[in-house]
Amino acid sequence: MTPISLTSADDPRIAAFRDVRERDLTGREGLFIAEGEVVLNVLTSAWSRCRARAVLLADKRLAKLEPVLSRLEADVPVYTAPQEVLDGIAGFHLHRGILALGEKPAPLDADAFLATRPERSVLVGAVGIGNADNMGGIFRNAAALGACGVMIDPGCCDPFYRKAIRVSVGAVLRTPLMAGLSALTMVEQAEAYGYVPLALTPGDGPDLLELEPPARSLVLLGAEGPGLSPEVLARARPVRIPMASGFDSLNVAATSAIVLHHLIRR
Amino acid sequence: MTPISLTSADDPRIAAFRDVRERDLTGREGLFIAEGEVVLNVLTSAWSRCRARAVLLADKRLAKLEPVLSRLEADVPVYTAPQEVLDGIAGFHLHRGILALGEKPAPLDADAFLATRPERSVLVGAVGIGNADNMGGIFRNAAALGACGVMIDPGCCDPFYRKAIRVSVGAVLRTPLMAGLSALTMVEQAEAYGYVPLALTPGDGPDLLELEPPARSLVLLGAEGPGLSPEVLARARPVRIPMASGFDSLNVAATSAIVLHHLIRR
Repeated sequence: MTPISLTSADDPRIAAFRDVRERDLTGREGLFIAEGEVVLNVLTSAWSRCRARAVLLADKRLAKLEPVLSRLEADVPVYTAPQEVLDGIAGFHLHRGILALGEKPAPLDADAFLATRPERSVLVGAVGIGNADNMGGIFRNAAALGACGVMIDPGCCDPFYRKAIRVSVGAVLRTPLMAGLSALTMVEQAEAYGYVPLALTPGDGPDLLELEPPARSLVLLGAEGPGLSPEVLARARPVRIPMASGFDSLNVAATSAIVLHHLIRR
Repeated sequence: MTPISLTSADDPRIAAFRDVRERDLTGREGLFIAEGEVVLNVLTSAWSRCRARAVLLADKRLAKLEPVLSRLEADVPVYTAPQEVLDGIAGFHLHRGILALGEKPAPLDADAFLATRPERSVLVGAVGIGNADNMGGIFRNAAALGACGVMIDPGCCDPFYRKAIRVSVGAVLRTPLMAGLSALTMVEQAEAYGYVPLALTPGDGPDLLELEPPARSLVLLGAEGPGLSPEVLARARPVRIPMASGFDSLNVAATSAIVLHHLIRR
């Protein structure tokens, strides 16, 4: 790894890193931008499902990051620049001082994936989760508590948004992801491999604590507010976390933490 | 409730709402700014520990909010303005269209409070939680799952930051708060009333699931990264949520959700 020193924010070699914030929502055709040391660590780890394409960092971070950077493949350029040049490239003050350009993993074939899961395993199905914080939180909880994969429907935001990756502390880069499935397709796919679909709902349904964890389950999580549709609720087993009096609801990421802990750790 | 219509962002009557974002971190001597309908709902509810001083909202929101606004005391002014004037006052685009100025509750006397808790109750002790998202998440989980109160040490951010209140969906405004206690003082105070201090740690310690919930417990949560100090860990019962292989840790708010669910709902 030989760092390439930059002196200008207009250097064409780092065009992919330019104006990161404005371009966060436009997509990059199979690529993503990630930021920070924790995430770079995951991206270059044995767990990563993604390839790094390039890294851009503040000069002053280089020494400390050498162990991580040395794990990059030899052809991955590492650009360094003074903090102010970096800020000029990114379009805002990049206090973490590290950006990486990565390739999203190839789409996962749900059948091939589900056929090879362990006998006991839990899937997460995210439906209409449009908030990047919540999406990142769900991935972090899935990875920390040991869910085997995440399914998302077309109503979800892209988990590869910079913010979702950051909130997930890199979990998005290592967790098997099946995208573009409707909630009902998730249920059908999962059931074909013996996963019991569980629908988290603030309404009726048995208390989570009364649920003996099935060997295989799919945890369906809807957006706060609308929740899961009646069609999905009718096709899955409803489960509820009782709330204290006078309080409306848990955040959806917090809900995922409680449910995954119950299903996987108990 | 007779709304007062504003035409200028410079109107002296709404000076407290001016440049909200810049002033978020400077404090307002016992006052706070809250935003959004959900939070206004809590502020004006029977559960609120805080008094509203004034409300400022976009003209177009008035009709829908009348039921909530009618719960305000008669002397609380409700200012309305076109969205662009509102944005000029706040200093950014206020897409929620609602700001409230409120009074923080009087400091709670920990002894008087703890002496009157139910026989079974759980306290949260936040230590060095500097991130407003995490602080808001902890309060939301505490309220949703039924913790009786939150203690915070001087290393925590102010739970009455606009962002923390928003993330808490108003839980900050209704949850009994004891501030300015060191972690060791929290332990001493709580133990005096029979609360078992539990220290969440990613390191050694028995699995949370092996812990038979005590009738009364204090859940101590440290910041991600530094965690709780060795002195605090030595004075409390360590408890751990095991992580899946290769993954570092849960977010502290997610941790609070799992622990409170175990202690209160089981």
